[in-house]
Amino acid sequence: MNRALKITGATRLYPIIGDPIAQVRSPETITEGFGTKGMNAVCIPVHVPVDRFDVIIPPLLALGNLDGLLVTVPFKARMLPFANRLGTTAQSIGALNALRREADGSWTGDMFDGHGFVRGAQRKGENVGGRRVALFGAGGAGSAIAFALADAGVRSIHVIDTNAERSAALVTKLRQAFQEGSFTPATEMPGDADMVVNASPIGMRVDDGMPGAIPSLSAGTLVGDVVITERPTALVRHAIAGGCDFVDGRDMHAGQVDAITSFFASAAKTATD
Amino acid sequence: MNRALKITGATRLYPIIGDPIAQVRSPETITEGFGTKGMNAVCIPVHVPVDRFDVIIPPLLALGNLDGLLVTVPFKARMLPFANRLGTTAQSIGALNALRREADGSWTGDMFDGHGFVRGAQRKGENVGGRRVALFGAGGAGSAIAFALADAGVRSIHVIDTNAERSAALVTKLRQAFQEGSFTPATEMPGDADMVVNASPIGMRVDDGMPGAIPSLSAGTLVGDVVITERPTALVRHAIAGGCDFVDGRDMHAGQVDAITSFFASAAKTATD
Repeated sequence: MNRALKITGATRLYPIIGDPIAQVRSPETITEGFGTKGMNAVCIPVHVPVDRFDVIIPPLLALGNLDGLLVTVPFKARMLPFANRLGTTAQSIGALNALRREADGSWTGDMFDGHGFVRGAQRKGENVGGRRVALFGAGGAGSAIAFALADAGVRSIHVIDTNAERSAALVTKLRQAFQEGSFTPATEMPGDADMVVNASPIGMRVDDGMPGAIPSLSAGTLVGDVVITERPTALVRHAIAGGCDFVDGRDMHAGQVDAITSFFASAAKTATD
Repeated sequence: MNRALKITGATRLYPIIGDPIAQVRSPETITEGFGTKGMNAVCIPVHVPVDRFDVIIPPLLALGNLDGLLVTVPFKARMLPFANRLGTTAQSIGALNALRREADGSWTGDMFDGHGFVRGAQRKGENVGGRRVALFGAGGAGSAIAFALADAGVRSIHVIDTNAERSAALVTKLRQAFQEGSFTPATEMPGDADMVVNASPIGMRVDDGMPGAIPSLSAGTLVGDVVITERPTALVRHAIAGGCDFVDGRDMHAGQVDAITSFFASAAKTATD
């Protein structure tokens, strides 16, 4: 951070809520994003104990200088009823990770996990349009990324998950939401894939291998991995070995900071206390 | 501030609540005080609309990473019922401006407006013990300062307020709380005073004069003024003209930062999430 953070009485609040909370990065990264946009605003960690969620959230939203909220595990689905309107991704997935107060006092929510991934790729000069994607993981992150990739115009997505019902359910939702693009549940990576994305937790532990059987990759293949680790995951090392470009968890987070601070800033322009 | 403020997921929260809130200085000064004490903690402004106080406070205190609260206008008296125990000053005055979570989850409140004034004087090398005080203003700030001065061993306090009932009530409380020291309601400054304190709002406006009729002061007189302004108040200018030492609103605020961060830090040592 090259700007000195300064909190004054006039600073606007954008808490990130979760349980636990100590591991989140947004207080640093989103606050830096606000600084870049010239907003006198701060993202603070707010630990909402899971059994007190319903009593804490309504009064939290009633604070006079709270203009938005970031949402992490385990509240991304439970926050839905607090939004007066939802972006298309949040609506399709049934979860949100950002909520902003509009000038009229109403709340708009959307899900940026997937947009963050796509924007993170774009920040590195990558184009995802037209690609044939093998996506490992059909949970929350996988669903958000699938929707963002479909929205960005990929040609096809094969969804691979150890839970076959979950991959089938995601494919059904994708087919309902998008006219274009081919979406298929799969048990292994298709031979013609030119993009491989891990949206499963595999890679978080130091001794984890790859999220599935992945052959040697040609240099034109784009690799993505949502996992944030100190050292590259097995999948990212595999990408490097193949000479492939890659988008890792940090790139995705940087893309999210862009997407979410833009989402907040566009409402903040007209908001009043 | 010579330390770069950094908020992480593990940062502990100490909001200051008030309505309005944009004018408060504590987010800067108390946060800097935490840094000096090596605490990963931040004071953030929280605007609690006055009509939603009762619904907001209980869930606010239920946040898992909130370890204390600062309280400003108009909530200093309304916060009392949320404390499980009170310091003697808060108890006598019926108001608090700081509340901390103890290791067992209970809440301790106290009032530091007066301690801040006395500590601000001490930070400038002044000794208040044994002084004969003329105190202008028997409201919240005046009451807190009177108790702190009595606690610090002044010889006498003459309490001067445009509202005679208010000065009489404060004197009664002082007499109940302290065996030593002489406390008298007054309508003007006594001739033998060697300390003059303004705890009234007079001086906040640029064209304000002094809080009452104050003759030329001898150099040994200590002058205090709670008002925080860009330029010295009429009373402080009067002190400077007489060659007197003085404690102004900024000195008092600096003393409060010391007192309040020490109050918070002593509980934080044993607190857990």
